[in-house]
Amino acid sequence: MHLSDITHPNQLHGLSIRQLEDVARQIREKHLETVAASGGHLGPGLGVVELTLALYQTLDLDRDKVTWDVGHQAYPHKLITGRYHDFHTLRQKDGVAGYLKRSESKFDHFGAGHASTSISAALGMALARDLSGDNYKVAAIIGDGALTGGMALEAINHAGHLPHTNLLVVLNDNEMSISPNVGAIPRYLNKMRLSPPVQFLTDNLEEQFKHLPFLGESLSPELDRVKEGMKRLAVPKVGAVFEELGFTYMGPVDGHNLQELITTFKEAHKHTGPVLVHVATTKGKGYAIAEKDQVGYHAQSPFNLSTGKGIPSTKPKPPSYSKVFAETLIKLAEDNPKIVGITAAMATGTGLDKLQQALPKQYIDVGIAEQHAITLAAGLACEGMRPVAAIYSTFLQRGFDQIVHDVCIQKLPVFFCLDRAGIVGADGPTHQGLYDIAYLRCIPNIVLMAPKDEAEMQRMMVTGIDYKAGAIAMRYPRGSGYGAPLMEEGWEPLPIGEAEVLRQGDDVLLLGYGSMVYPAMQTAEILSEHGIEATVVNARFAKPLDEALILPLAREIGKVVTFEEGCLMGGFGSAVVESIMDAQVQASVLRIGVPDVLVDHASPDQSKASLGLTPPQMAERILATYQVEKPALVR
Amino acid sequence: MHLSDITHPNQLHGLSIRQLEDVARQIREKHLETVAASGGHLGPGLGVVELTLALYQTLDLDRDKVTWDVGHQAYPHKLITGRYHDFHTLRQKDGVAGYLKRSESKFDHFGAGHASTSISAALGMALARDLSGDNYKVAAIIGDGALTGGMALEAINHAGHLPHTNLLVVLNDNEMSISPNVGAIPRYLNKMRLSPPVQFLTDNLEEQFKHLPFLGESLSPELDRVKEGMKRLAVPKVGAVFEELGFTYMGPVDGHNLQELITTFKEAHKHTGPVLVHVATTKGKGYAIAEKDQVGYHAQSPFNLSTGKGIPSTKPKPPSYSKVFAETLIKLAEDNPKIVGITAAMATGTGLDKLQQALPKQYIDVGIAEQHAITLAAGLACEGMRPVAAIYSTFLQRGFDQIVHDVCIQKLPVFFCLDRAGIVGADGPTHQGLYDIAYLRCIPNIVLMAPKDEAEMQRMMVTGIDYKAGAIAMRYPRGSGYGAPLMEEGWEPLPIGEAEVLRQGDDVLLLGYGSMVYPAMQTAEILSEHGIEATVVNARFAKPLDEALILPLAREIGKVVTFEEGCLMGGFGSAVVESIMDAQVQASVLRIGVPDVLVDHASPDQSKASLGLTPPQMAERILATYQVEKPALVR
Repeated sequence: MHLSDITHPNQLHGLSIRQLEDVARQIREKHLETVAASGGHLGPGLGVVELTLALYQTLDLDRDKVTWDVGHQAYPHKLITGRYHDFHTLRQKDGVAGYLKRSESKFDHFGAGHASTSISAALGMALARDLSGDNYKVAAIIGDGALTGGMALEAINHAGHLPHTNLLVVLNDNEMSISPNVGAIPRYLNKMRLSPPVQFLTDNLEEQFKHLPFLGESLSPELDRVKEGMKRLAVPKVGAVFEELGFTYMGPVDGHNLQELITTFKEAHKHTGPVLVHVATTKGKGYAIAEKDQVGYHAQSPFNLSTGKGIPSTKPKPPSYSKVFAETLIKLAEDNPKIVGITAAMATGTGLDKLQQALPKQYIDVGIAEQHAITLAAGLACEGMRPVAAIYSTFLQRGFDQIVHDVCIQKLPVFFCLDRAGIVGADGPTHQGLYDIAYLRCIPNIVLMAPKDEAEMQRMMVTGIDYKAGAIAMRYPRGSGYGAPLMEEGWEPLPIGEAEVLRQGDDVLLLGYGSMVYPAMQTAEILSEHGIEATVVNARFAKPLDEALILPLAREIGKVVTFEEGCLMGGFGSAVVESIMDAQVQASVLRIGVPDVLVDHASPDQSKASLGLTPPQMAERILATYQVEKPALVR
Repeated sequence: MHLSDITHPNQLHGLSIRQLEDVARQIREKHLETVAASGGHLGPGLGVVELTLALYQTLDLDRDKVTWDVGHQAYPHKLITGRYHDFHTLRQKDGVAGYLKRSESKFDHFGAGHASTSISAALGMALARDLSGDNYKVAAIIGDGALTGGMALEAINHAGHLPHTNLLVVLNDNEMSISPNVGAIPRYLNKMRLSPPVQFLTDNLEEQFKHLPFLGESLSPELDRVKEGMKRLAVPKVGAVFEELGFTYMGPVDGHNLQELITTFKEAHKHTGPVLVHVATTKGKGYAIAEKDQVGYHAQSPFNLSTGKGIPSTKPKPPSYSKVFAETLIKLAEDNPKIVGITAAMATGTGLDKLQQALPKQYIDVGIAEQHAITLAAGLACEGMRPVAAIYSTFLQRGFDQIVHDVCIQKLPVFFCLDRAGIVGADGPTHQGLYDIAYLRCIPNIVLMAPKDEAEMQRMMVTGIDYKAGAIAMRYPRGSGYGAPLMEEGWEPLPIGEAEVLRQGDDVLLLGYGSMVYPAMQTAEILSEHGIEATVVNARFAKPLDEALILPLAREIGKVVTFEEGCLMGGFGSAVVESIMDAQVQASVLRIGVPDVLVDHASPDQSKASLGLTPPQMAERILATYQVEKPALVR
């Protein structure tokens, strides 16, 4: 059967193992070819080809429900659920999304992007099923990395308490999150992987037990308890934790053996209550280069399939913000042993892997556990350390309560570094870093800042480390900086809340924040061509706002424009508007940013263009707003 | 030794068991007497009197660090750390706080209020200690309920991975959160409580093992593995999960036996790496009435010590919002089997215990697990259910990312009911429900509403159940409603985003949101006495704002005041200001609400008075702002 003919996963039902193997081969080919051409997640999908096929052969996806954790491993799922022919558009504007999406396919039963949500969603579906008196199957596929996320464990705790609610959890254990896993749970899983499979062990043991003298008779209450526990021991270290938590444990199963997988899933479906099938997979399976470098090939930019090497971009780019961040942090940490960099399983993404190499003692990876990361940082701060929590804007959402409750209420000096703040591009709505200004600004005792370029980021890092009166957060965008010359000296902290004037003009006041400062400058140049002269201010701080600088300028110039790469509801522009109203300054404000809609996957430039955030578009909007003599402006 | 003479916990060091028992008795007396007089948490503190004394006898609190989870059980701690003489001011304005607070005492090493944070904070302190080359002890005391919170499990996963980091986790297992616990972990703990203590079992077993023939010789690889596991089995069900996760498990220990506790803690301090001491306590210990009704006496309003009965308030109050909420939900759920009420371990607080009694199938308690609760609700919504997640405003912070990522991005119809939104009173800063408008408003695909009284709440509940285009959230305050007559008919949903005009006047436009609508009306009456006539609008929706109604009024009247019981940064008033600016309406806006400060514990009325939120104060402020001819207003 040719993969291109599979448009419904139920077409897998009749296939033999050999036929499935052939489909698996075709999936890998298409998967590799597509990611090599357009970029995307590589290792995760290659690792679950057999898992997907085997599971789907035992399910009826017209009725049964499947939730894939994160969703970056679901390309095989996409290829057999009607998206083969569009798959070349992967992660491109208007093309197939890089994650699952309910609006993209009826087979995407639950979307994701962040980790650890799949069991909760699946359990919700299972409870809905039971309430409706229906009997379809529900399965969640979760990685061993995602299992360390607290909400997955909350879900295990709940599901394990419901012996009559059928739920299949497939643990896709590849011994990795993006980087090697952290924590006692992965270590425990690893121990299990090294044990022989359960079936073999129990079969053999039962034979052996027959020959043991003491098993027939009751010797003492303690030994009776030993006997009772014997069966449990026979499934010994393997799965005991899950069994104690109310799950039927099955495995470990070879995740690349279709027959073994199918047999196990069929068996699992017969059980009542929650079942966990532990599947041992290899990330990048079938592509030797990716199997060998599992961190490097978790996700890839376009690359050459035969060498595995990235295709060099035509014009060289300046170093990324993440890189400058990491290198600066190392410099600062070398001089200050109190500095500790913290990541929640995003060592390579944030650049903190470099800190780990340079100063391993001053580096902590807590696993996929943003909540814990933040309160751990609070604990470190209590004892005089300078914790630097490097977390993507979108993932910091996971730790919102900890920022409020453990850091800000206690005025603890934790320095939050929000990577990927703003438009993130191909990862789409689940990963957009658009809300941080709004969700952080409402909390007392936190300073919010954003650098205009990578050199100012360095200065702000010094500021963040220096600030001890409470929490402080710095947001910076995904991708390359501007190539601004990095600081060699002048490592002075910025005065908190101090903005800077970059350009002077009488007609309009442009207030830029972070990544929108240079675009505001470019907009000013375009305006100038139209005879409009702008004052441009690099606000630097969204909280506290530099009212001493901004309000008099607003009063004088009267026409204000704010620029931010974030949501308009409650964001930087909103802070400006609040200040202007509070001070009863008579000025109009045009707020430019991301309106109250989801931003789909596309290149960052494409997204910005659709949102009207390019300098020509912004200039046009300003001209339309402020040149036409609108009644509200003529007084 | 008299309790009043203990001002430093190290004074416990020399005391004999008998002397400690005497201190314990005095703590219970003072604890009971104080809570009976002023109200506060009762059961949790009474349950840990011996645990506290025993632990502190083995620690040097000038150096060692202790983090108490939640902190509602820390009254005994307060009584021996210098707050005995002020203890009668418990939970009163400027008095002793109901939770721990770093600013209140140098012995409060980490504040709290929300559950499940203590292990993360303690681990942070332990890592700081190791980095600094110091060697003090760090202990976290966490309840079995709090242990089901995901972040506690994230911390266990991390700590269990650090075999050289000394950390003591004391599991205060009273088999309860506020209500009986939910989940596989508490069930597992309960099984352990029923086992004989470890020491006894292992001692005996070793004797028995000697007589077993097969233990001396190697029979087969499988049996060798059995033998290896034997010792583990001997500490069998008891603690195996924690041992597998890298902790040394000790217990269960009788939490009211000082000698046993002290011996165990001393032993625990000798171990390297993370240790978990499992202490079995009785909530309310020593006060028979509270031991018998552990849910009812978790926390109490003032009551008669000998009868346990509440002291009737002098004037009868109308039913609380929570009560009306629960009764209305039951009515709606009786007619609509798709409705499912969800609580995260706050059944009594939210009133959902009544739903549980009336319609148990349509009720879900997930334990202390807000994150899971929300994504579970998303899963239910996918399958056509009408999930109603009743979560306090402050606790919903825990699920912020789930609201964004699992509910709103997927436009799933989850109905969030935010109890305790606004000023909460005696619980203080950790529990204030001040941020929800701001942190929810920035998310696309969510409707925000707040009723002016309990009758409108009923109407909004119909609206919330009816709304299927995405998420919808309703906030309502702690405590009594206004006694507004409840709806018997007219169960029609409100049009989304429609405000109502309550009063008309030409001089100033007052826009009230939720609990501030009636205060806005009262303010209007006071203004009227000063010759100022106000139009008052009940905004009902903060998102979408009724711009069609509000903007023309603002344009006409020119002077606008917004009223909200929430943070001003990014809140309802901010939404109004954004709209007015966006539409280039020429109007001034005075935003009244909670400024960017923490709100300390006090009665709600006291807090409101300090914040200038009483109608006379607000009227005065409006007069000062809008009567004086300020330059900015004269054009």
